Amino acid sequence: MNIDAAILADPNKRGTLILEILNYYVPEVMQTMAGLTVVPGGGNPSAPQPSLLKGVTGSIGLSGKVTGIVYTAFQENLAKVVAEKILGGEASDQDINDVVAELTNMITGNLKSQLCDMGYNCALSIPSVVRGEHISVSAKTASVSVRSDYVFDGGLGSLTLQVFATLEK
Amino acid sequence: MNIDAAILADPNKRGTLILEILNYYVPEVMQTMAGLTVVPGGGNPSAPQPSLLKGVTGSIGLSGKVTGIVYTAFQENLAKVVAEKILGGEASDQDINDVVAELTNMITGNLKSQLCDMGYNCALSIPSVVRGEHISVSAKTASVSVRSDYVFDGGLGSLTLQVFATLEK
Repeated sequence: MNIDAAILADPNKRGTLILEILNYYVPEVMQTMAGLTVVPGGGNPSAPQPSLLKGVTGSIGLSGKVTGIVYTAFQENLAKVVAEKILGGEASDQDINDVVAELTNMITGNLKSQLCDMGYNCALSIPSVVRGEHISVSAKTASVSVRSDYVFDGGLGSLTLQVFATLEK
Repeated sequence: MNIDAAILADPNKRGTLILEILNYYVPEVMQTMAGLTVVPGGGNPSAPQPSLLKGVTGSIGLSGKVTGIVYTAFQENLAKVVAEKILGGEASDQDINDVVAELTNMITGNLKSQLCDMGYNCALSIPSVVRGEHISVSAKTASVSVRSDYVFDGGLGSLTLQVFATLEK
């Protein structure tokens, strides 16, 4: 995708751009990895904190010229369907965690590459997975908070992304 | 604290050393910041995954020669007591999150400094806070999984640390 790097220098537009990057890559990753079609179902480039998530939630930290954290919250049933599509068979809870971790890694890797191309180099931490029905996440020091929902075709469920980030040139 | 860096080159001893670093710094940070005495209450240098946490849980990612994530899970009542000790008055949920984020940052910062001194440079992501009563965390790709409990004097409660990490020279 092509994004004008100059726009990212404007703090007010960073949330919108991160949302745009997510809306491009999340459907691409799901299509490529699981053969599933997803549609961005509404996003907020300046989302309030704390942000409420539930289900099987991957997270990865970013550090460098971007510091932050990306959360990917899959509804529990959806996580199982996606894992079984990818693995081609019955998926245990551990299998599901592994798939969610890997998808989080791919989505965050794409975000990182785009930010890197714009001069905001950063490195990723390892993916970890949090499960819970009432997960409330916040990151006060983040200057950008982006939340976006993705609806899977066929009534499979939805995925919520929450990104907290601070960008420094 | 003084740790023989050579020991850290032995993968089997990394968990033990990370535990030793935590057992040194967690009490120090709590004493310095909140004037509270805490005692390590049992630690596992090769803790099973997933790891179950609850309460107000800070997390920060590490990336570089160490990639990983540090979780600090404060029992909910304890988080409030600690926040009010540090802030010197009534603490809102947001205040409590802020304090937990900052304590997580300090503990992880000390761990980072120690690892850096041993040749394992890394950078931190921003702290974020997860709240929930049933938080299950895992990080399959981590070669080290350390879990440790800290008991606060006066029956105030306990804090659990979970560190997932992979070290590469």
